[in-house]
Amino acid sequence: MSKLRVESFTISLDGFGAGPNQDITNPLGVGGTSLHGWAWSTRTFQKAVLGNEGGSTDGLDEDYAARGFRNIGAWILGRNMFGPVRGPWPDEKWRGWWGENPVYRVPVFVLTNHARAPLVMEGGTTFHFVTAGIDTALVRAREAAEGMDVRLGGGVNVIQQYLRQRLIDEMHIAIAPVLLGSGERLFEGVNLPALGYACTKHEASPLATHVVISRQPNQ
Amino acid sequence: MSKLRVESFTISLDGFGAGPNQDITNPLGVGGTSLHGWAWSTRTFQKAVLGNEGGSTDGLDEDYAARGFRNIGAWILGRNMFGPVRGPWPDEKWRGWWGENPVYRVPVFVLTNHARAPLVMEGGTTFHFVTAGIDTALVRAREAAEGMDVRLGGGVNVIQQYLRQRLIDEMHIAIAPVLLGSGERLFEGVNLPALGYACTKHEASPLATHVVISRQPNQ
Repeated sequence: MSKLRVESFTISLDGFGAGPNQDITNPLGVGGTSLHGWAWSTRTFQKAVLGNEGGSTDGLDEDYAARGFRNIGAWILGRNMFGPVRGPWPDEKWRGWWGENPVYRVPVFVLTNHARAPLVMEGGTTFHFVTAGIDTALVRAREAAEGMDVRLGGGVNVIQQYLRQRLIDEMHIAIAPVLLGSGERLFEGVNLPALGYACTKHEASPLATHVVISRQPNQ
Repeated sequence: MSKLRVESFTISLDGFGAGPNQDITNPLGVGGTSLHGWAWSTRTFQKAVLGNEGGSTDGLDEDYAARGFRNIGAWILGRNMFGPVRGPWPDEKWRGWWGENPVYRVPVFVLTNHARAPLVMEGGTTFHFVTAGIDTALVRAREAAEGMDVRLGGGVNVIQQYLRQRLIDEMHIAIAPVLLGSGERLFEGVNLPALGYACTKHEASPLATHVVISRQPNQ
């Protein structure tokens, strides 16, 4: 079966997956951008996110950035990753952080409590707004992925919900050598060993430590 | 002035400095021993803790283990690092985890609420029991260190108390590629950037990521 994967999700040394006070000028919360130094250095991110040719083409950081886009047939995002708008949608104006041609290029399922019509963007991305919960989003994403894997983008709260249900197969987490001090902690309130997860890979570049956490077979 | 340093303090990927339920058979809490794989591999630990000749003599892990014992003139330990006995000392029987010739070989100041006479061990270690709080322990340790640095052994709670007072100069933290799930979290309830700390070094071996967190000059 296709996997549910978290990829390139970066936390600080003190465990935060985003800084505090997300808003339109701080999509990753205050200080959150400093987490992603390793990713910005890679050719994959330069090209996928900024449309630039550049960045490093080899090395560990590039390997991890690239693997995050391989064999992905759909994404799931929490609503706060889609944008800073909270509560009912006041209108249809907000169309994501990524311009008219977003990086995804596949169907993206956005978890929200507030219904909205699908948003067809350029380049193959369609945002579907799912109000029926995480299980429904996963079923729909799997169907849309047509045998490929589903990538769970975050944020912290959404990842935790899927972890508690043991629905995530594999997580690539990058630990950046920065301190954020406050924000949302990825490993707060989830006991990963008790849920059957273990660290199965560990390597580091000068800019980040990369680990893979995998769900272990039921015993 | 002599520094107050934390060295070779290891946390799990999910941020725990010790496992839950410390007792006589689990000095580091349940699962806590798995944190220290990197340290056990080093010549410094093999020799200092077990009295063995062996372990790796070069490499990053050995470098960090060795630096932790350089220029140290005294130690400070929380009482739970000294032993599993809680409350008033029932008798003088408990003499530490380390046998009659402990690894320290310098004066060690043990923070406790319960007075006890100093304990003179073989090899230069004397345990002094300090009931007057963390500031007094530091003054006494500095005096005993005669110009050398003071090493703060832990545990988590004691490190946090010294951090909140900005009394720690430098911390070498090792992040081990294991998940503990519960226990005491080193970075819980301390906002390091707000306290003026920053990550100043970051490198990794196959067994651990090593970071140095340093107090920045007052601005």
